[in-house]
Amino acid sequence: MADPVNFYFDFSSPYSYFAAQKIDSTVEACGRTVRWKPFLLGALFKITGSQPLTTIPFKGDYCLHDWERLGQMTNTPWIMPDPFPIPTQAAGRAFYWLDEQDPNQAKAFALAAFNTYFGQGINIATPDKVIEVAEGVGVDGTALSVALQEDDVKQRLKDETQAAIDAGVFGAPFFIVDGEGFWGSDRMWMIKRWLQGRNA
Amino acid sequence: MADPVNFYFDFSSPYSYFAAQKIDSTVEACGRTVRWKPFLLGALFKITGSQPLTTIPFKGDYCLHDWERLGQMTNTPWIMPDPFPIPTQAAGRAFYWLDEQDPNQAKAFALAAFNTYFGQGINIATPDKVIEVAEGVGVDGTALSVALQEDDVKQRLKDETQAAIDAGVFGAPFFIVDGEGFWGSDRMWMIKRWLQGRNA
Repeated sequence: MADPVNFYFDFSSPYSYFAAQKIDSTVEACGRTVRWKPFLLGALFKITGSQPLTTIPFKGDYCLHDWERLGQMTNTPWIMPDPFPIPTQAAGRAFYWLDEQDPNQAKAFALAAFNTYFGQGINIATPDKVIEVAEGVGVDGTALSVALQEDDVKQRLKDETQAAIDAGVFGAPFFIVDGEGFWGSDRMWMIKRWLQGRNA
Repeated sequence: MADPVNFYFDFSSPYSYFAAQKIDSTVEACGRTVRWKPFLLGALFKITGSQPLTTIPFKGDYCLHDWERLGQMTNTPWIMPDPFPIPTQAAGRAFYWLDEQDPNQAKAFALAAFNTYFGQGINIATPDKVIEVAEGVGVDGTALSVALQEDDVKQRLKDETQAAIDAGVFGAPFFIVDGEGFWGSDRMWMIKRWLQGRNA
Protein backbone atom coordinates (compact mmCIF):
# COMPACT_ATOMS: atom_id res chain seq x y z
CA MET A 1 0.00 0.00 0.00
CA ALA A 2 1.26 3.46 -0.87
CA ASP A 3 2.52 5.76 1.89
CA PRO A 4 0.08 8.28 3.33
CA VAL A 5 0.19 11.91 2.25
CA ASN A 6 1.85 13.96 5.00
CA PHE A 7 -0.07 17.10 6.03
CA TYR A 8 2.21 19.48 7.94
CA PHE A 9 0.54 22.25 9.89
CA ASP A 10 0.66 24.48 12.95
CA PHE A 11 -2.47 24.87 15.07
CA SER A 12 -2.00 28.63 14.86
CA SER A 13 -1.89 28.79 11.04
CA PRO A 14 -5.12 30.10 9.44
CA TYR A 15 -4.43 28.62 6.01
CA SER A 16 -3.72 25.29 7.72
CA TYR A 17 -7.14 25.54 9.36
CA PHE A 18 -8.79 25.93 5.97
CA ALA A 19 -6.70 23.09 4.50
CA ALA A 20 -7.62 20.84 7.44
CA GLN A 21 -11.29 21.02 6.48
CA LYS A 22 -10.75 19.35 3.14
CA ILE A 23 -7.42 17.51 2.92
CA ASP A 24 -8.76 14.11 4.04
CA SER A 25 -11.69 14.07 1.62
CA THR A 26 -9.50 15.34 -1.23
CA VAL A 27 -6.84 12.69 -0.76
CA GLU A 28 -9.19 9.83 0.10
CA ALA A 29 -11.13 10.47 -3.10
CA CYS A 30 -7.87 9.53 -4.85
CA GLY A 31 -7.58 6.28 -2.90
CA ARG A 32 -4.90 7.45 -0.46
CA THR A 33 -4.84 8.42 3.22
CA VAL A 34 -3.47 11.42 5.10
CA ARG A 35 -1.09 11.46 8.04
CA TRP A 36 -1.48 14.69 10.04
CA LYS A 37 1.79 16.22 11.22
CA PRO A 38 1.54 19.27 13.48
CA PHE A 39 4.81 21.12 14.04
CA LEU A 40 6.01 24.39 15.52
CA LEU A 41 5.97 27.07 12.85
CA GLY A 42 7.88 29.41 15.17
CA ALA A 43 10.88 27.06 15.15
CA LEU A 44 10.77 27.03 11.36
CA PHE A 45 10.48 30.82 11.15
CA LYS A 46 13.74 31.09 13.10
CA ILE A 47 15.43 29.27 10.23
CA THR A 48 13.64 30.84 7.26
CA GLY A 49 13.47 34.34 8.71
CA SER A 50 9.72 34.43 8.05
CA GLN A 51 7.20 36.13 10.30
CA PRO A 52 3.54 35.66 11.13
CA LEU A 53 1.48 36.81 8.14
CA THR A 54 -0.42 39.47 10.04
CA THR A 55 2.82 41.33 10.84
CA ILE A 56 3.91 41.62 7.19
CA PRO A 57 3.15 45.00 5.57
CA PHE A 58 0.39 44.90 2.90
CA LYS A 59 0.19 41.10 3.01
CA GLY A 60 -1.05 41.18 6.60
CA ASP A 61 -4.12 43.29 5.86
CA TYR A 62 -4.83 41.27 2.75
CA CYS A 63 -4.71 38.01 4.70
CA LEU A 64 -7.06 39.28 7.40
CA HIS A 65 -9.60 40.02 4.71
CA ASP A 66 -8.81 36.84 2.80
CA TRP A 67 -9.48 34.57 5.79
CA GLU A 68 -12.85 36.19 6.34
CA ARG A 69 -13.67 35.76 2.65
CA LEU A 70 -12.41 32.17 2.59
CA GLY A 71 -14.63 31.37 5.53
CA GLN A 72 -17.66 32.75 3.74
CA MET A 73 -16.86 31.17 0.39
CA THR A 74 -16.17 27.71 1.78
CA ASN A 75 -18.84 27.79 4.49
CA THR A 76 -16.17 27.41 7.16
CA PRO A 77 -16.76 29.21 10.48
CA TRP A 78 -14.19 31.97 10.89
CA ILE A 79 -13.44 34.36 13.73
CA MET A 80 -10.08 36.12 13.74
CA PRO A 81 -8.75 35.09 17.15
CA ASP A 82 -7.06 37.42 19.58
CA PRO A 83 -4.32 36.72 20.64
CA PHE A 84 -2.81 35.62 17.35
CA PRO A 85 -0.54 33.78 16.81
CA ILE A 86 -0.38 31.62 19.93
CA PRO A 87 2.08 28.99 21.24
CA THR A 88 0.85 25.57 20.11
CA GLN A 89 3.12 23.31 22.10
CA ALA A 90 0.30 21.89 24.23
CA ALA A 91 -1.90 21.11 21.24
CA GLY A 92 0.97 19.56 19.30
CA ARG A 93 2.05 17.41 22.24
CA ALA A 94 -1.50 16.25 22.83
CA PHE A 95 -1.85 15.39 19.16
CA TYR A 96 1.16 13.06 18.98
CA TRP A 97 0.30 11.40 22.30
CA LEU A 98 -3.17 10.65 20.93
CA ASP A 99 -1.80 9.69 17.53
CA GLU A 100 0.20 6.84 19.05
CA GLN A 101 -2.98 5.39 20.51
CA ASP A 102 -5.58 6.21 17.89
CA PRO A 103 -4.77 8.29 14.78
CA ASN A 104 -8.46 8.90 14.05
CA GLN A 105 -9.03 10.31 17.51
CA ALA A 106 -5.93 12.46 17.07
CA LYS A 107 -7.40 13.90 13.87
CA ALA A 108 -10.73 14.49 15.57
CA PHE A 109 -8.88 16.35 18.31
CA ALA A 110 -6.90 18.39 15.78
CA LEU A 111 -10.03 19.44 13.93
CA ALA A 112 -11.72 20.33 17.23
CA ALA A 113 -8.70 22.37 18.31
CA PHE A 114 -8.62 24.20 14.97
CA ASN A 115 -12.35 24.84 15.12
CA THR A 116 -12.13 26.14 18.68
CA TYR A 117 -9.37 28.59 17.83
CA PHE A 118 -10.38 29.81 14.37
CA GLY A 119 -14.05 28.84 14.26
CA GLN A 120 -14.93 30.19 17.70
CA GLY A 121 -12.02 32.52 18.36
CA ILE A 122 -11.11 30.81 21.64
CA ASN A 123 -7.46 30.71 22.70
CA ILE A 124 -6.17 27.10 22.82
CA ALA A 125 -2.65 27.87 24.02
CA THR A 126 -2.94 26.52 27.57
CA PRO A 127 -2.78 22.85 28.57
CA ASP A 128 -6.12 23.28 30.37
CA LYS A 129 -7.88 24.43 27.22
CA VAL A 130 -6.25 21.69 25.15
CA ILE A 131 -7.43 19.08 27.66
CA GLU A 132 -10.96 20.52 27.53
CA VAL A 133 -11.00 20.34 23.74
CA ALA A 134 -9.64 16.77 23.85
CA GLU A 135 -12.29 15.72 26.35
CA GLY A 136 -14.86 17.01 23.91
CA VAL A 137 -13.82 14.29 21.44
CA GLY A 138 -13.78 11.55 24.08
CA VAL A 139 -10.20 11.70 25.33
CA ASP A 140 -9.37 10.84 28.97
CA GLY A 141 -8.46 14.30 30.25
CA THR A 142 -6.65 13.09 33.34
CA ALA A 143 -4.37 10.82 31.35
CA LEU A 144 -3.69 13.59 28.84
CA SER A 145 -2.94 16.02 31.66
CA VAL A 146 -0.24 13.67 32.95
CA ALA A 147 1.09 13.03 29.44
CA LEU A 148 1.53 16.73 28.67
CA GLN A 149 4.12 16.90 31.46
CA GLU A 150 6.19 13.98 30.21
CA ASP A 151 9.60 14.56 28.68
CA ASP A 152 9.17 12.06 25.88
CA VAL A 153 5.87 13.67 24.87
CA LYS A 154 7.59 17.07 24.77
CA GLN A 155 10.52 15.61 22.86
CA ARG A 156 8.25 14.00 20.29
CA LEU A 157 6.92 17.38 19.12
CA LYS A 158 10.48 18.73 18.92
CA ASP A 159 11.51 15.70 16.89
CA GLU A 160 8.54 16.03 14.56
CA THR A 161 9.27 19.72 14.04
CA GLN A 162 12.86 18.92 13.15
CA ALA A 163 11.75 16.06 10.89
CA ALA A 164 9.40 18.42 9.06
CA ILE A 165 12.21 20.92 8.52
CA ASP A 166 14.53 18.13 7.37
CA ALA A 167 11.86 16.97 4.92
CA GLY A 168 11.87 20.41 3.27
CA VAL A 169 8.81 21.95 4.89
CA PHE A 170 9.20 25.76 4.87
CA GLY A 171 5.69 26.98 5.64
CA ALA A 172 2.22 25.83 6.61
CA PRO A 173 0.17 24.15 5.41
CA PHE A 174 2.63 21.95 3.55
CA PHE A 175 2.00 18.57 1.99
CA ILE A 176 4.44 15.86 0.98
CA VAL A 177 3.17 13.24 -1.44
CA ASP A 178 5.67 10.49 -2.24
CA GLY A 179 8.51 12.95 -1.72
CA GLU A 180 6.81 15.73 -3.74
CA GLY A 181 6.18 18.93 -1.78
CA PHE A 182 3.13 21.19 -2.11
CA TRP A 183 2.79 24.45 -0.23
CA GLY A 184 -0.44 26.24 0.63
CA SER A 185 -4.14 25.62 1.06
CA ASP A 186 -4.74 26.61 -2.58
CA ARG A 187 -2.92 23.56 -3.86
CA MET A 188 -5.58 20.91 -3.29
CA TRP A 189 -6.21 20.77 -7.05
CA MET A 190 -2.55 20.04 -7.69
CA ILE A 191 -2.30 17.34 -5.04
CA LYS A 192 -5.37 15.72 -6.56
CA ARG A 193 -3.93 15.95 -10.07
CA TRP A 194 -0.65 14.51 -8.83
CA LEU A 195 -2.32 11.58 -7.07
CA GLN A 196 -4.58 10.87 -10.03
CA GLY A 197 -1.61 10.82 -12.38
CA ARG A 198 0.25 8.44 -10.09
CA ASN A 199 -2.67 6.16 -9.48
CA ALA A 200 -4.03 6.23 -13.04
CA MET B 1 -22.11 47.45 -18.11
CA ALA B 2 -19.93 46.34 -15.21
CA ASP B 3 -16.30 47.46 -15.04
CA PRO B 4 -13.66 45.08 -16.36
CA VAL B 5 -11.62 42.94 -13.99
CA ASN B 6 -8.15 44.45 -13.68
CA PHE B 7 -5.27 41.99 -14.14
CA TYR B 8 -2.03 43.43 -12.74
CA PHE B 9 1.19 41.73 -13.78
CA ASP B 10 4.86 42.13 -14.58
CA PHE B 11 6.27 40.55 -17.73
CA SER B 12 9.01 39.01 -15.60
CA SER B 13 6.66 37.30 -13.12
CA PRO B 14 6.32 33.53 -13.65
CA TYR B 15 3.04 33.19 -11.78
CA SER B 16 1.69 36.09 -13.85
CA TYR B 17 2.65 34.13 -16.97
CA PHE B 18 0.58 31.18 -15.79
CA ALA B 19 -2.32 33.43 -14.83
CA ALA B 20 -2.19 35.14 -18.22
CA GLN B 21 -3.00 31.84 -19.94
CA LYS B 22 -6.40 31.55 -18.29
CA ILE B 23 -7.63 34.83 -16.83
CA ASP B 24 -9.59 35.96 -19.91
CA SER B 25 -11.45 32.67 -20.35
CA THR B 26 -12.14 32.43 -16.60
CA VAL B 27 -13.60 35.92 -16.37
CA GLU B 28 -15.40 35.89 -19.71
CA ALA B 29 -17.19 32.67 -18.72
CA CYS B 30 -18.74 34.79 -15.95
CA GLY B 31 -19.90 37.43 -18.41
CA ARG B 32 -17.21 39.99 -17.66
CA THR B 33 -14.09 41.24 -19.42
CA VAL B 34 -10.46 41.70 -18.33
CA ARG B 35 -8.31 44.80 -18.56
CA TRP B 36 -4.61 43.88 -18.61
CA LYS B 37 -2.39 46.15 -16.51
CA PRO B 38 1.36 45.53 -16.67
CA PHE B 39 3.39 47.36 -14.05
CA LEU B 40 6.95 47.37 -12.71
CA LEU B 41 7.23 44.87 -9.89
CA GLY B 42 10.66 46.23 -9.00
CA ALA B 43 9.14 49.62 -8.11
CA LEU B 44 6.65 47.83 -5.87
CA PHE B 45 9.34 45.71 -4.21
CA LYS B 46 11.10 48.94 -3.18
CA ILE B 47 8.01 49.78 -1.14
CA THR B 48 7.11 46.34 0.22
CA GLY B 49 10.67 45.19 0.80
CA SER B 50 9.99 42.04 -1.19
CA GLN B 51 12.52 40.33 -3.44
CA PRO B 52 12.39 38.16 -6.55
CA LEU B 53 11.12 34.71 -5.53
CA THR B 54 14.20 32.87 -6.73
CA THR B 55 16.39 34.79 -4.28
CA ILE B 56 14.34 33.82 -1.22
CA PRO B 57 15.76 30.90 0.81
CA PHE B 58 13.71 27.68 0.62
CA LYS B 59 10.89 29.39 -1.31
CA GLY B 60 13.19 30.02 -4.27
CA ASP B 61 14.04 26.36 -4.85
CA TYR B 62 10.42 25.40 -4.33
CA CYS B 63 9.23 27.91 -6.92
CA LEU B 64 11.75 26.76 -9.52
CA HIS B 65 10.33 23.26 -9.19
CA ASP B 66 6.76 24.52 -8.94
CA TRP B 67 6.93 26.44 -12.23
CA GLU B 68 8.23 23.37 -14.03
CA ARG B 69 5.43 21.29 -12.50
CA LEU B 70 2.78 23.93 -13.26
CA GLY B 71 3.89 23.97 -16.87
CA GLN B 72 3.50 20.21 -17.12
CA MET B 73 0.21 20.05 -15.26
CA THR B 74 -1.43 22.85 -17.23
CA ASN B 75 0.16 22.01 -20.59
CA THR B 76 1.83 25.43 -20.65
CA PRO B 77 5.28 25.63 -22.26
CA TRP B 78 7.88 26.43 -19.60
CA ILE B 79 11.59 27.14 -19.77
CA MET B 80 13.21 28.85 -16.79
CA PRO B 81 14.77 31.88 -18.48
CA ASP B 82 18.27 33.14 -17.82
CA PRO B 83 18.68 36.02 -16.99
CA PHE B 84 15.82 36.20 -14.50
CA PRO B 85 14.29 38.54 -13.51
CA ILE B 86 14.70 41.10 -16.30
CA PRO B 87 13.78 44.78 -16.68
CA THR B 88 10.36 44.98 -18.34
CA GLN B 89 10.16 48.69 -19.10
CA ALA B 90 10.23 48.19 -22.87
CA ALA B 91 7.49 45.54 -22.82
CA GLY B 92 5.31 47.58 -20.46
CA ARG B 93 5.68 50.75 -22.54
CA ALA B 94 4.89 48.87 -25.73
CA PHE B 95 1.82 47.36 -24.11
CA TYR B 96 0.21 50.67 -23.09
CA TRP B 97 1.05 52.30 -26.41
CA LEU B 98 -0.71 49.43 -28.18
CA ASP B 99 -3.52 49.38 -25.64
CA GLU B 100 -4.51 52.93 -26.56
CA GLN B 101 -4.94 51.89 -30.17
CA ASP B 102 -6.26 48.34 -29.88
CA PRO B 103 -6.64 46.57 -26.51
CA ASN B 104 -6.96 43.18 -28.20
CA GLN B 105 -3.71 43.63 -30.05
CA ALA B 106 -2.10 44.75 -26.80
CA LYS B 107 -3.22 41.51 -25.14
CA ALA B 108 -1.96 39.47 -28.09
CA PHE B 109 1.39 41.23 -27.72
CA ALA B 110 1.44 40.62 -23.96
CA LEU B 111 0.78 36.91 -24.40
CA ALA B 112 3.42 36.70 -27.11
CA ALA B 113 5.95 38.50 -24.89
CA PHE B 114 5.16 36.16 -21.97
CA ASN B 115 5.41 33.11 -24.19
CA THR B 116 8.71 34.29 -25.64
CA TYR B 117 10.27 34.81 -22.22
CA PHE B 118 8.84 31.91 -20.21
CA GLY B 119 7.70 29.55 -22.96
CA GLN B 120 10.89 29.78 -25.03
CA GLY B 121 13.35 31.17 -22.48
CA ILE B 122 14.25 34.15 -24.68
CA ASN B 123 15.20 37.44 -23.01
CA ILE B 124 12.66 40.18 -23.87
CA ALA B 125 14.34 43.02 -21.96
CA THR B 126 15.59 45.05 -24.93
CA PRO B 127 13.49 47.37 -27.10
CA ASP B 128 14.69 45.45 -30.17
CA LYS B 129 13.36 42.17 -28.86
CA VAL B 130 10.08 43.77 -27.78
CA ILE B 131 9.65 45.24 -31.26
CA GLU B 132 10.35 41.84 -32.83
CA VAL B 133 7.73 40.19 -30.60
CA ALA B 134 5.23 42.95 -31.40
CA GLU B 135 5.84 42.59 -35.13
CA GLY B 136 4.98 38.92 -34.73
CA VAL B 137 1.43 39.90 -33.77
CA GLY B 138 1.07 42.41 -36.60
CA VAL B 139 2.33 45.62 -34.97
CA ASP B 140 4.11 48.28 -37.03
CA GLY B 141 7.64 47.90 -35.66
CA THR B 142 8.90 51.24 -36.93
CA ALA B 143 6.08 53.15 -35.26
CA LEU B 144 6.61 51.20 -32.03
CA SER B 145 10.34 51.88 -32.16
CA VAL B 146 9.64 55.62 -32.25
CA ALA B 147 6.98 55.34 -29.54
CA LEU B 148 9.33 53.58 -27.13
CA GLN B 149 11.50 56.72 -27.06
CA GLU B 150 8.66 59.11 -26.26
CA ASP B 151 8.41 60.70 -22.87
CA ASP B 152 4.65 60.31 -22.55
CA VAL B 153 4.93 56.60 -23.35
CA LYS B 154 7.57 56.22 -20.64
CA GLN B 155 5.49 58.29 -18.23
CA ARG B 156 2.40 56.16 -18.86
CA LEU B 157 4.08 53.03 -17.48
CA LYS B 158 5.28 54.98 -14.45
CA ASP B 159 1.76 56.30 -13.88
CA GLU B 160 0.23 52.83 -14.26
CA THR B 161 2.74 51.40 -11.79
CA GLN B 162 1.87 54.09 -9.27
CA ALA B 163 -1.84 53.59 -9.90
CA ALA B 164 -1.46 49.86 -9.23
CA ILE B 165 0.32 50.55 -5.95
CA ASP B 166 -2.33 53.12 -5.01
CA ALA B 167 -5.05 50.56 -5.76
CA GLY B 168 -3.53 48.17 -3.21
CA VAL B 169 -1.58 45.85 -5.48
CA PHE B 170 1.32 44.34 -3.49
CA GLY B 171 2.43 41.43 -5.70
CA ALA B 172 1.88 39.82 -9.08
CA PRO B 173 -0.34 38.51 -10.43
CA PHE B 174 -2.98 40.59 -8.68
CA PHE B 175 -6.61 41.03 -9.66
CA ILE B 176 -9.09 43.70 -8.67
CA VAL B 177 -12.76 42.90 -9.21
CA ASP B 178 -15.13 45.72 -8.33
CA GLY B 179 -12.68 46.92 -5.69
CA GLU B 180 -12.06 43.42 -4.30
CA GLY B 181 -8.41 42.29 -4.47
CA PHE B 182 -7.19 38.77 -5.22
CA TRP B 183 -3.53 37.82 -5.14
CA GLY B 184 -1.92 34.93 -6.95
CA SER B 185 -2.42 32.61 -9.90
CA ASP B 186 -4.09 30.04 -7.62
CA ARG B 187 -7.08 32.28 -7.03
CA MET B 188 -8.94 31.80 -10.31
CA TRP B 189 -11.54 29.70 -8.47
CA MET B 190 -12.18 32.51 -6.04
CA ILE B 191 -12.48 35.20 -8.70
CA LYS B 192 -14.95 32.95 -10.50
CA ARG B 193 -16.93 32.35 -7.32
CA TRP B 194 -16.94 36.06 -6.59
CA LEU B 195 -18.16 36.99 -10.08
CA GLN B 196 -20.80 34.29 -10.05
CA GLY B 197 -22.09 35.49 -6.71
CA ARG B 198 -22.25 39.06 -7.96
CA ASN B 199 -23.83 38.20 -11.27
CA ALA B 200 -26.20 35.52 -9.95
